[in-house]
Amino acid sequence: MKITDIEVYLTCLGRNYLFIKVLTDTPGLWGIGEGTLNGSEPIVASTIQHITPLLIGQDPQRIEDIWHLVYRQGYWRGGPIFMAALAAIDLALWDIKGKIANLPVYQLLGGRARDGVMCYSHAGGRDEQECEDNARKLIEQGFRAVRCQVGPYGGAGVIGELPPLHPEAPPTSLYEPTPYLLQVPKLFAHLRSKLGMEVELLHDVHEQLDPIQAARLAKEVEPYRLFYLEDPLMPEHRESWPLVRAASTTPLAIGEIFTSRWDCLPVFMNRWIDYIRIKPLHVGGLTEARKIMVLAEPFNVRSAFHGAADIGPVAQAASVALQITIPNFGIQEWTRFPEPVYDVIEGIPEMRQGFLYPTERPGLGIEIDTAKLQKYPYKRAFMPIVRRADGTMHVY
Amino acid sequence: MKITDIEVYLTCLGRNYLFIKVLTDTPGLWGIGEGTLNGSEPIVASTIQHITPLLIGQDPQRIEDIWHLVYRQGYWRGGPIFMAALAAIDLALWDIKGKIANLPVYQLLGGRARDGVMCYSHAGGRDEQECEDNARKLIEQGFRAVRCQVGPYGGAGVIGELPPLHPEAPPTSLYEPTPYLLQVPKLFAHLRSKLGMEVELLHDVHEQLDPIQAARLAKEVEPYRLFYLEDPLMPEHRESWPLVRAASTTPLAIGEIFTSRWDCLPVFMNRWIDYIRIKPLHVGGLTEARKIMVLAEPFNVRSAFHGAADIGPVAQAASVALQITIPNFGIQEWTRFPEPVYDVIEGIPEMRQGFLYPTERPGLGIEIDTAKLQKYPYKRAFMPIVRRADGTMHVY
Amino acid sequence: MKITDIEVYLTCLGRNYLFIKVLTDTPGLWGIGEGTLNGSEPIVASTIQHITPLLIGQDPQRIEDIWHLVYRQGYWRGGPIFMAALAAIDLALWDIKGKIANLPVYQLLGGRARDGVMCYSHAGGRDEQECEDNARKLIEQGFRAVRCQVGPYGGAGVIGELPPLHPEAPPTSLYEPTPYLLQVPKLFAHLRSKLGMEVELLHDVHEQLDPIQAARLAKEVEPYRLFYLEDPLMPEHRESWPLVRAASTTPLAIGEIFTSRWDCLPVFMNRWIDYIRIKPLHVGGLTEARKIMVLAEPFNVRSAFHGAADIGPVAQAASVALQITIPNFGIQEWTRFPEPVYDVIEGIPEMRQGFLYPTERPGLGIEIDTAKLQKYPYKRAFMPIVRRADGTMHVY
Amino acid sequence: MKITDIEVYLTCLGRNYLFIKVLTDTPGLWGIGEGTLNGSEPIVASTIQHITPLLIGQDPQRIEDIWHLVYRQGYWRGGPIFMAALAAIDLALWDIKGKIANLPVYQLLGGRARDGVMCYSHAGGRDEQECEDNARKLIEQGFRAVRCQVGPYGGAGVIGELPPLHPEAPPTSLYEPTPYLLQVPKLFAHLRSKLGMEVELLHDVHEQLDPIQAARLAKEVEPYRLFYLEDPLMPEHRESWPLVRAASTTPLAIGEIFTSRWDCLPVFMNRWIDYIRIKPLHVGGLTEARKIMVLAEPFNVRSAFHGAADIGPVAQAASVALQITIPNFGIQEWTRFPEPVYDVIEGIPEMRQGFLYPTERPGLGIEIDTAKLQKYPYKRAFMPIVRRADGTMHVY
Repeated sequence: MKITDIEVYLTCLGRNYLFIKVLTDTPGLWGIGEGTLNGSEPIVASTIQHITPLLIGQDPQRIEDIWHLVYRQGYWRGGPIFMAALAAIDLALWDIKGKIANLPVYQLLGGRARDGVMCYSHAGGRDEQECEDNARKLIEQGFRAVRCQVGPYGGAGVIGELPPLHPEAPPTSLYEPTPYLLQVPKLFAHLRSKLGMEVELLHDVHEQLDPIQAARLAKEVEPYRLFYLEDPLMPEHRESWPLVRAASTTPLAIGEIFTSRWDCLPVFMNRWIDYIRIKPLHVGGLTEARKIMVLAEPFNVRSAFHGAADIGPVAQAASVALQITIPNFGIQEWTRFPEPVYDVIEGIPEMRQGFLYPTERPGLGIEIDTAKLQKYPYKRAFMPIVRRADGTMHVY
Repeated sequence: MKITDIEVYLTCLGRNYLFIKVLTDTPGLWGIGEGTLNGSEPIVASTIQHITPLLIGQDPQRIEDIWHLVYRQGYWRGGPIFMAALAAIDLALWDIKGKIANLPVYQLLGGRARDGVMCYSHAGGRDEQECEDNARKLIEQGFRAVRCQVGPYGGAGVIGELPPLHPEAPPTSLYEPTPYLLQVPKLFAHLRSKLGMEVELLHDVHEQLDPIQAARLAKEVEPYRLFYLEDPLMPEHRESWPLVRAASTTPLAIGEIFTSRWDCLPVFMNRWIDYIRIKPLHVGGLTEARKIMVLAEPFNVRSAFHGAADIGPVAQAASVALQITIPNFGIQEWTRFPEPVYDVIEGIPEMRQGFLYPTERPGLGIEIDTAKLQKYPYKRAFMPIVRRADGTMHVY
Repeated sequence: MKITDIEVYLTCLGRNYLFIKVLTDTPGLWGIGEGTLNGSEPIVASTIQHITPLLIGQDPQRIEDIWHLVYRQGYWRGGPIFMAALAAIDLALWDIKGKIANLPVYQLLGGRARDGVMCYSHAGGRDEQECEDNARKLIEQGFRAVRCQVGPYGGAGVIGELPPLHPEAPPTSLYEPTPYLLQVPKLFAHLRSKLGMEVELLHDVHEQLDPIQAARLAKEVEPYRLFYLEDPLMPEHRESWPLVRAASTTPLAIGEIFTSRWDCLPVFMNRWIDYIRIKPLHVGGLTEARKIMVLAEPFNVRSAFHGAADIGPVAQAASVALQITIPNFGIQEWTRFPEPVYDVIEGIPEMRQGFLYPTERPGLGIEIDTAKLQKYPYKRAFMPIVRRADGTMHVY
Repeated sequence: MKITDIEVYLTCLGRNYLFIKVLTDTPGLWGIGEGTLNGSEPIVASTIQHITPLLIGQDPQRIEDIWHLVYRQGYWRGGPIFMAALAAIDLALWDIKGKIANLPVYQLLGGRARDGVMCYSHAGGRDEQECEDNARKLIEQGFRAVRCQVGPYGGAGVIGELPPLHPEAPPTSLYEPTPYLLQVPKLFAHLRSKLGMEVELLHDVHEQLDPIQAARLAKEVEPYRLFYLEDPLMPEHRESWPLVRAASTTPLAIGEIFTSRWDCLPVFMNRWIDYIRIKPLHVGGLTEARKIMVLAEPFNVRSAFHGAADIGPVAQAASVALQITIPNFGIQEWTRFPEPVYDVIEGIPEMRQGFLYPTERPGLGIEIDTAKLQKYPYKRAFMPIVRRADGTMHVY
């Protein structure tokens, strides 16, 4: 069996996604993959198109071999672009293997280790009361875990916005840590007094603090029993983990921008975190994500796979397939996709009462109506820019 | 789908083996496993029979779940008996999954990462010349790697033998390290002068030395470029690894009596070894062996799976299935099975020119003529006992 | 003097026990041992029967030599099955030696270092008040130390139970950490306010928490001055000890499922614990348990020998014999045996006012009416299975 | 002053290069940058084009600010693609700043710390004699340091070649470590006996060895006093540095595929290396490369900037500008560019007697005749693929 070509689809289904189809010389057999990288999709698309000649003629069943071929093809290795491209290919190969076996991918990964994948969703609000109200709505839908924040992305630290210098550039948020640091403990004091101690609450720092500030915040929210505190540090700042870790017993999570086992290994081996937020999409696919979760096991690190809406439906299916099979599952982030996604794509994992369930179709179970994608062309978009009040780029 | 029963077969096919058949409620669908543990097969058999009620009614497709169920069932966990029993069950479940998928197990594990599995075999002899002659025979058969030793199991350190006190007990070997330590460097000086530097040569210490003796031996054979020096220490003696490791750049291997990732983790994390000699059979099956090889990857430890003739054909098929798929493959030990094995069992991995190749049948590909097994009843047997010349039990 | 045979007794005296009798060629001289391993007794029995030919003809007075002979006989060494079998033999040999000397075993171990062995016992209850009431009853009986818990085995984390799939399998408990984590600090706040600060209180986590949860719990109960917090981690999870240890000054204990010095050494050398919960029964007998307590001394680790009712009367006699002689004694767990034990067995260590006292008879001092055992046949039983609410096996 | 646009030039001047021109609203003022990434140039080009809207309108004099803006724009950060794109922009901004100041960039970086930049060049050959002959030619040209190797890229380990599966894919080299490991010590024994001990000799392992093999090689060549041994490990394999480092006093170098300070910090802090092979081109430009060399100072690590011919003339000018100013300069790799480079580009640093000298023109001093580039269109090219003899992808 041979790979004959790779088709790349760049589309805006409410937000931008990048899907691929790996074609084979077996009639009717192809694999669906996804390489969405929020704000950088055209670069990933050009990567996949550039390396397609390396893949044509390879046996799609040799997943581990192709993984290493693609990983090493560039000599310079790793990083978000190469690893998202590799993920797209790897997911498509697992989809093909599942179809050959006539089994859903989770069966190939060892079979169900639980009934469904417990999810949290996000509750924001302009103030503590609105955040509480939105959390209650999620709890009524069956969610047992809610991530809470007052204010926009970045929380109460966002104190203003500057317009872009170019029509296609994003606006610039102005952020100061002090209002944020003062507000968060109040939010969780409020929520615990109103919602009780049993519901699981989470919070995301968005890498916006200095380490000693993150340490203080983790300590100040310790009485409110967070399920975890997310991204208290930039991943680059490994040397500062001991400072944050020693300050409290608040569980810590990181990893949504990690791209490989090499990012994970030090945080695992040093026991700096409790939850790892990788997902197959950005670490080179199921092949690497599975290995990362194996590496996490002896260090008691559980999964908390990143699941914002920019982790598209194919990538979500892979996340669910893996997390329903691993022993060290923790939690999954969940956000409803924009409506056009449901117009174009079938087989999306089902959300019921706060749990995600995989489809029972062969492979990853996703079908994309590629003809319809022409209605939804890609629109250039960037991630937000953040500066401090004095104009400094934030955070270094 | 449900497990309905487990059949246990204890047999002596030239040497003792323990096979199992996990039956399901799907007609014609069962899985073949193996729990051979040299010298202790009846104990593993009684373990599997004891825990069978825990497995009846479980879905055999949920391998990861059943693995943890069996692993934890005893509260006291791990050790050679429980892990061999768990391996037997796990191998049978992977066999079932492959049959459901109609694919050889190696395809479920990620597909071929190489053409065949390079093996070494063992060349002994009463003296250096006979050892050289026997090595040449293996090289002529296509082997590129040969493990060499003068003398019986234990090498030139074996200086005598005492008869057993009971007719069913084994004899006692008398062992002294000094003659052994003097002989081994001479052996490899001889072999390198006769066979050249390119063929890969290995040697097994059999855990018979004190750490400082092992360090000296590793240093003395350094000029002869061993592929690796095997079992320089007892696995229990973790504290002494730095002593042995620092003495030379001779590659080191251990692990044939390891039973889990927990044995492997310290030797990996501390970079004490280069090759790990586990195999699915004694570490709880493919599920755990695969994880161990993932844990080995970031520490640059390669596989060198134990493959003496007491690792039977089902276990060997599992070893080959895993090693043909992993990136960090190193080498596989190979020994021809006693003839009755070939009389009773089909689908044994094929040896060609020093390489093992998996069968392309679904699952592990092994078929056992269980009716024929009645001709080959189990015979109680024990591992050898070793004492020093002064009567001391060797080695503590 | 020679060992002539080993008799194995598998019996249910309210709960299952495994006793052995090592016979000698000296008329009237035998040794009583015990190899009870809760849920796995038939496997230990088959082990002892399998290796009996290795022991027949050996001199029972060479305890250290036989210990190493049995330890090494299987080549694969250690683990709960082999070490329980070895313990049974070792206890019987010490019993023989005491009888030869016409002295209780504690005299051979160095003689009394204290008058009696201080014990704690367990007080449960459906709520905090009932737990307090039951603790008061123990205090009134003379106990100066009480282990407390609300709810069944597993405490307030047990939220349900699933029936078994097979009539001989155990039921499955459903466990969630959040209700447990919220309840325990409340329990000890209650107990300290009612019982004062002087009585020693203990608590057992039963390995049910993630490390960061265990760290938090140890920190939250710190004000209530526990004598120790038991089994905060699974023994496998060595890498996570620093996390738990750094969070508080609550004393920590582990070791009831340890099987050898090799399990103990890292927790001693790293000063992760304060109390070690081994006992002779599961670590290969008095020979190894004595060495472990010697290794514990320089690291200031005290004994806290496991003493649930599945540590039968012979094993308890060995525990008391050792703990009355060592300098680094801490505490002993005590539970009254089921009534049939007292019907069949004489010489059980005496409980008076919260202290255990050894008998003054030669050897371990235990006599078993083996004829009566036929009234009490073994009944297959397993340890409980625990899952999370989502069906996941708990804890990995 | 504002950036008005970025022009991207993808060209094959004998080999592929990627140049950019950052245009400003000041007439006649632009900056030349380079983002060549061997085998991946079209991906870097698409990256720069994608993010150009973020840069239009920015003040090109705010280099540090723009560096962080571009570094953080993608949310997922770092990796070879993003960092090469950032380098291209950063180099162009430094070129602009030099032109504004009417000074060569080295003057802005602190001014000359030495007269010229000592270089080594590479001497290969089919056998040891040819390698010696080629080294002599370089020495006669004035080089005081020569990197030596027998055989093609990969040295004597390359034992064959497989044709590509697709006309645009590269061939596959077959590599085995044993012939390589046997040949290298012989080569340096030969060279030292013929060329004496004074000339500086270097060798590049190309990341092709297992750590224990690299350790052995470093030890075996220790008598031949290498200036350094290059790339003994894959950069990913951080855990294995102690093994290689402890084996010898052979100086070690790594870093040509590092992309940021975060890759450098552990190898600096742990003193695993002596020379760092980064260069401005692949680490995000002069801004980051200068910081890396500052971080290297307290750990006594010297520069040895990567300078194969795929580090084009603009990037080379930046390397020379930095290395002529820093205290911890070590050595610079030098290779003559293909002839078309000299046809199209002016201001390339001058090579005289084994030393590179910067031009004295403002900025980086490079002028590209962009009209001529149309004669030299980009040709898709990939880095070589390497497999072991058994078909395994090499090295993992």
